[in-house]
Amino acid sequence: MSRRTLLTEEELRGALHGLDGWEVRNGKLHRTFVFRDFVEAWGFMCRVALVAEAMNHHPEWSNVYRTVTVDLSTHDAGGITMLDVDLAHRMNALAGSEHATHA
Amino acid sequence: MSRRTLLTEEELRGALHGLDGWEVRNGKLHRTFVFRDFVEAWGFMCRVALVAEAMNHHPEWSNVYRTVTVDLSTHDAGGITMLDVDLAHRMNALAGSEHATHA
Amino acid sequence: MSRRTLLTEEELRGALHGLDGWEVRNGKLHRTFVFRDFVEAWGFMCRVALVAEAMNHHPEWSNVYRTVTVDLSTHDAGGITMLDVDLAHRMNALAGSEHATHA
Amino acid sequence: MSRRTLLTEEELRGALHGLDGWEVRNGKLHRTFVFRDFVEAWGFMCRVALVAEAMNHHPEWSNVYRTVTVDLSTHDAGGITMLDVDLAHRMNALAGSEHATHA
Repeated sequence: MSRRTLLTEEELRGALHGLDGWEVRNGKLHRTFVFRDFVEAWGFMCRVALVAEAMNHHPEWSNVYRTVTVDLSTHDAGGITMLDVDLAHRMNALAGSEHATHA
Repeated sequence: MSRRTLLTEEELRGALHGLDGWEVRNGKLHRTFVFRDFVEAWGFMCRVALVAEAMNHHPEWSNVYRTVTVDLSTHDAGGITMLDVDLAHRMNALAGSEHATHA
Repeated sequence: MSRRTLLTEEELRGALHGLDGWEVRNGKLHRTFVFRDFVEAWGFMCRVALVAEAMNHHPEWSNVYRTVTVDLSTHDAGGITMLDVDLAHRMNALAGSEHATHA
Repeated sequence: MSRRTLLTEEELRGALHGLDGWEVRNGKLHRTFVFRDFVEAWGFMCRVALVAEAMNHHPEWSNVYRTVTVDLSTHDAGGITMLDVDLAHRMNALAGSEHATHA
């Protein structure tokens, strides 16, 4: 199975177990990260941008001051794949346990 | 008049004349920028982030691959002020005439 | 005294007491930060860039993979001022105690 | 031949022909880029950082205000390889003809 294959309901449920702060919303992996201020939120986005470009898999994300909201899906597959789960894990690791909370 | 004072309808109409690509949507200054690829879109966001932090006036913005969508308003004033008009002008200049188109 | 006034030897000695990891080298405040990898080093530089632009006081810095080397001085004053000490403190705070070590 | 194989003198001379602004200095590909201001220099570095991370080939570079100085070599190979030539071409394209001059 390619990492770009659509996950089944069951695979997705399994994947969400280990993904702190993420849920499925509108058919995408969704999480909000809240940081101390804009500088910390932006530093997070800069780290994620490197990882996303290297994976050639880019998030749909928005930012207002210290909040970063992310939706992940795989356009070609028409839904959530292991690529999205991988990027979600990377984003959790890059956010750091001390700074980010999910709102 | 402070730069954080709400613009009147007439002032806003005047300000929009010189602001290529921007419109008022949901009470905010709104524009979509489209770049060649994620690298160019991200480079734009990096330049804007510096300017926004230095102005202490931050955009509400979202990004999907090569598209950056921006909404500007001044939270304290409850609407659009000269600060937003200033940041919109800065963003147009930073986007560069050759790369960005409004969608 | 302006923050752009050259520090005396004694003021500089006092300032260095609280500045973990920094020393005077070639008439500039000097420190090397080492991170886990390029992504973490770059995230640090992105945070510092925002702060430096907002202060309108920019570092002389270099990067090789996970290492960031910084030299701070105030060009107009011809040496080290409180602006440099301020930026050095900000950089220490932005590096975070867990990631950075001075080499 | 792998892209990580050391270039011969002749291959290197050939590669330099098409590389505007670059020269060999201390066994590395060397170029200085000068931009309008820090914001433009930083936007360039942000674009290059994405490309470098995706190539898993990182520059040795320094920045002072609007100047970015770059040295490229391939550590494992002990000198200049096609990876460095590729990254140099990417950096020239990312700098844009209108902003950068070599000093």
